[in-house]
Amino acid sequence: MTIIHSSPSAAAALEQFDIKNSTAIQVGDLYFFSGMTAIDLSTFEVSQADVATQARITLENFGAMLEDMGLSLDHVIKVNAQLADVTEFPSWNAVFLDVFDAPYPCRTTVGAPLVVGEIEVEIIAASTPRK
Amino acid sequence: MTIIHSSPSAAAALEQFDIKNSTAIQVGDLYFFSGMTAIDLSTFEVSQADVATQARITLENFGAMLEDMGLSLDHVIKVNAQLADVTEFPSWNAVFLDVFDAPYPCRTTVGAPLVVGEIEVEIIAASTPRK
Amino acid sequence: MTIIHSSPSAAAALEQFDIKNSTAIQVGDLYFFSGMTAIDLSTFEVSQADVATQARITLENFGAMLEDMGLSLDHVIKVNAQLADVTEFPSWNAVFLDVFDAPYPCRTTVGAPLVVGEIEVEIIAASTPRK
Repeated sequence: MTIIHSSPSAAAALEQFDIKNSTAIQVGDLYFFSGMTAIDLSTFEVSQADVATQARITLENFGAMLEDMGLSLDHVIKVNAQLADVTEFPSWNAVFLDVFDAPYPCRTTVGAPLVVGEIEVEIIAASTPRK
Repeated sequence: MTIIHSSPSAAAALEQFDIKNSTAIQVGDLYFFSGMTAIDLSTFEVSQADVATQARITLENFGAMLEDMGLSLDHVIKVNAQLADVTEFPSWNAVFLDVFDAPYPCRTTVGAPLVVGEIEVEIIAASTPRK
Repeated sequence: MTIIHSSPSAAAALEQFDIKNSTAIQVGDLYFFSGMTAIDLSTFEVSQADVATQARITLENFGAMLEDMGLSLDHVIKVNAQLADVTEFPSWNAVFLDVFDAPYPCRTTVGAPLVVGEIEVEIIAASTPRK
């Protein structure tokens, strides 16, 4: 087991928000991640932009954290997204298809009241890439 | 890793809905699936029936996709269900107990605003059956 | 695969509520658990206390079930929490930080209409502890 308490790319932002849960924990070939939202990793502010922009920032945050671990968005196998407004699914879906490359990860999307922001995303990654 | 981009049983329906995420991705002994709802795999329509019927169709869809992969509903270890109306839990629970056999999978059920339909289900399966 | 149909600590309570899904299923080094809420394992009643108390009872239930399996809360790698009232996040977060020890598990928290109670928690544990 490897515990990534705080990925270098995200460490300062997560500390700013006093987030103490681990960023990711690896068990064997699987990497389980904490939920992430559209926190700007340099300004430490949650984006107030539209859901498409927030979705892109959130996935890019995962991309930066995965790179810290020697992985990339190509290693993501599962994406769970919760939207504050589920009718925004098409906007989220467009970003998902743009940020990831085929073959795409598995994915589930539902609506949910969120702690902050318009989208909360959680991922599972694998030690080998999808392609 | 094995990526099941589109299970033969579901391929035509998923293409009809322009669903591009992978159906399932296997890592070692675990198979992670995308969320599924009550899409009729032959008519390509989302069921407008009551939640019990939609739940049954959804689980049968997983059954068909698992069979494509040489597995069955007996290989499911984890079920996450989201209900558009959480007070329908008893109807969903009855279908869960009818479609699966003991020992039952692990399960979590909560309510959520859904993209389509009355129920969204996500599963994890294993390479060995529960019984 | 090892199926923990009903952990001794929770068996009587789960039977009282006619809960038939498995408590946990182990595949390799991972233990997937069913969702749990603030059921008092001795009185078989769902707590009517505030969300902080309910969160503590829920995590202590997992602790008891993990002990039945020769594990502890130190083996938890992932926590998914759903709050009936997402504005109660600070109360839940305080309990999370108090019950678990650093390095903390990964975690995602969102709001959701719940079947019963103020909080529903689901965990994944590993065969080796976080520390």
